[in-house]
Amino acid sequence: MIDPEALLRRMFQAALDAADPRLCLPPFLAPLAARPCGGRTVVIGAGKAAAAMAAATEAVWAEHAPGAAIEGLVVTRYGHGCPTAGRIEVVEASHPVPDDAGRAAAGRILELVRGLGAGDRVIALISGGGSALLTLPAEAISLEDKQAVNRALLKSGASIHEMNAVRKHLSAIKGGRLAAAAAPAQVHAFLISDVPGDDVDVIASGPTVPDPSTLADARAVLAKYAIDPPAAVARALADPAYETPKRGDPIFEGVETTIVARPQASLEAAAEVARAAGVEPVILGDAIEGEAREVAMVMAGIAAQIARHGQPAAAPAVLLSGGETTVTVRGQGRGGRNAEFLTALAVAVEKRCADVADCIAAVAGDTDGIDGTEDNAGALFLPGDLERARATGVDLAGHLANNDGYGAFEALGRLLVTGPTLTNVNDFRAVLVLP
Amino acid sequence: MIDPEALLRRMFQAALDAADPRLCLPPFLAPLAARPCGGRTVVIGAGKAAAAMAAATEAVWAEHAPGAAIEGLVVTRYGHGCPTAGRIEVVEASHPVPDDAGRAAAGRILELVRGLGAGDRVIALISGGGSALLTLPAEAISLEDKQAVNRALLKSGASIHEMNAVRKHLSAIKGGRLAAAAAPAQVHAFLISDVPGDDVDVIASGPTVPDPSTLADARAVLAKYAIDPPAAVARALADPAYETPKRGDPIFEGVETTIVARPQASLEAAAEVARAAGVEPVILGDAIEGEAREVAMVMAGIAAQIARHGQPAAAPAVLLSGGETTVTVRGQGRGGRNAEFLTALAVAVEKRCADVADCIAAVAGDTDGIDGTEDNAGALFLPGDLERARATGVDLAGHLANNDGYGAFEALGRLLVTGPTLTNVNDFRAVLVLP
Repeated sequence: MIDPEALLRRMFQAALDAADPRLCLPPFLAPLAARPCGGRTVVIGAGKAAAAMAAATEAVWAEHAPGAAIEGLVVTRYGHGCPTAGRIEVVEASHPVPDDAGRAAAGRILELVRGLGAGDRVIALISGGGSALLTLPAEAISLEDKQAVNRALLKSGASIHEMNAVRKHLSAIKGGRLAAAAAPAQVHAFLISDVPGDDVDVIASGPTVPDPSTLADARAVLAKYAIDPPAAVARALADPAYETPKRGDPIFEGVETTIVARPQASLEAAAEVARAAGVEPVILGDAIEGEAREVAMVMAGIAAQIARHGQPAAAPAVLLSGGETTVTVRGQGRGGRNAEFLTALAVAVEKRCADVADCIAAVAGDTDGIDGTEDNAGALFLPGDLERARATGVDLAGHLANNDGYGAFEALGRLLVTGPTLTNVNDFRAVLVLP
Repeated sequence: MIDPEALLRRMFQAALDAADPRLCLPPFLAPLAARPCGGRTVVIGAGKAAAAMAAATEAVWAEHAPGAAIEGLVVTRYGHGCPTAGRIEVVEASHPVPDDAGRAAAGRILELVRGLGAGDRVIALISGGGSALLTLPAEAISLEDKQAVNRALLKSGASIHEMNAVRKHLSAIKGGRLAAAAAPAQVHAFLISDVPGDDVDVIASGPTVPDPSTLADARAVLAKYAIDPPAAVARALADPAYETPKRGDPIFEGVETTIVARPQASLEAAAEVARAAGVEPVILGDAIEGEAREVAMVMAGIAAQIARHGQPAAAPAVLLSGGETTVTVRGQGRGGRNAEFLTALAVAVEKRCADVADCIAAVAGDTDGIDGTEDNAGALFLPGDLERARATGVDLAGHLANNDGYGAFEALGRLLVTGPTLTNVNDFRAVLVLP
């Protein structure tokens, strides 16, 4: 007998655990701590998981290198700090819109690694959100110029790769420039991936890895989308001094990059939980994107196929997916993309496959613990909830029309609240189909 | 070595063949023809497959009951007629917006079955599109009244089941009323399903099957969506004489309903072709719905997962799905939902998983042979097409922004043209992932 709520919660927790810095980072750090470098060990980092990664690093050093000095500075999002031993300073700053606290921290991080020698060691703790938290315009570029270009790019329809080609060339820290500043010190970068495909140059805009894009690419993107940049930006993009470091550049000889957590690993962990419960996991992808309500409609269709035809798997089965959906806001309601996804899933089940509604349950949540701007990570949808909604006057279709997923699941008592999880492997969705 | 174009075409053809009246209908008709009823055999029908179903019926009778009289009338969409032996009259009419030809045919069909006796036999050939082709308002309801209510329903956001609850109660032929007119004759209804879940009361609005909805349901739908109906409609919906026949009504004792083709069977047929070619079929569902470009993004995500992680199947694999996507038209271009889906798939592959682009190929088409209003059934997307598009200046993202899927694939020479197929099991999509 499967308890859908318990199973869904266990799968979500397994996804979080697989990405928890306290669990996933020590196995990689311990050998490093046990092997002193002779020089200084400077820890820097940025992202939603930065504080937790710093605390884990301190703990590993306390255990494996109790006498060794460790120092540094990481920057995380407001509210994503956590208790540390105090050897690594933790600064909080604004995300996704950068602020002065983040800019100051980025400047101090660059200062910390500049001037280190070949006998010194940098441990870089990089996670999602690091890009906004590490905003520092390149020399002679004002923040206003950078923001103007950024706004134009966001409106243009350019892909994330195209936008990054421009952004990296206007930054003092992204696109490998942090590694350049740290050379000739040894750099050990540990990454928690929140991006589809786990491209290391996309995670936090790749401060420690070679940039595959060029100044010419950056200029081509602006030309393609007919973006007329401020004069200082145009000058920079025409000046070879602004080229980012590339693969093969000697500055990367001392850099070692390790991904310690990623969406796929969290999906696999949830799949293990499902399997142990006798439920067949169907991993649809770690990079499932699209408008949340439309993605939900597709998932409802696949869930109905499982229930009606035993395809692509026989029930009990669970559709697992990661990646980031989008919400085109038209209403006035509250809630993030996961609550929107789940509201749309409930409406799709009711309108399109009511015959199998009792077999379908789901969880959707942001693994960073914050679905948008509210206090919930996501929500749960359980068998019987459609009748409960009808009986208690919760108009799910109305909530959906108003982009009010939070309101819908608050009314149903089905919000999933974790608080900041201090990690981030993007969204996690599980749609369970019972026999 | 897999030839992606040949395999995709074979799968699409297999989907069509599984729904071809000339192939799928005779096995059900032959036993009937071989067993004379003693009275008259009247063939009636409506839908995009009606002419082909009538021709198949004539052929079966010619073979198995050469001496027996057979007569009747079917109505199909303009352009969906086909050569017949002339014993069953074929009328063409307008779809999806009804016209006088359809209304007149519906009236004649009712006349044909009225007054038949218990020794007579009706063969009803029902397929998708039959609802619009069999428009006949109930007594005292004008076509204008019915259309006004219909427009209000379409704007309201009501589900198809809710809309049908109202429509059936305002019709002289839908919701089992055709069966009521034919009683006490034996009615053998043969259905080609184009609807998710194959609900027999939804296919062509269920002219020969019990109506699960009631007058009270119809009134509740209008109240729910605050639709103020014309006076004649309000009077009808309050008058028990307008109730549709229900399950258990003696008029259905002589009715036998058989689904001879359905989306799921077409997906299974395509899956067989894939299997025979050594490609693992993953049937995602016969009822995959949603905005075409968003569904495409999800499919690209799943295809990328196959290519990168071998989940939910190892390459070579093919994602098969049916059901009807929607297109919110914002541009000025040409093409139906299948061309839009495929354009969006190409753009998603280029923007979101370029690393595996060479592994991905796809076909999307309407099984009725007409994707929207153009002359194509759909289109093909093959490995190398992204480079060809770039090299020849075909701006796929621009075509997508302009809802110009037809233009995109016309420029690439990848339109799939079949002409009317004389059947309809909704859309067919196959996304192939090569190793």
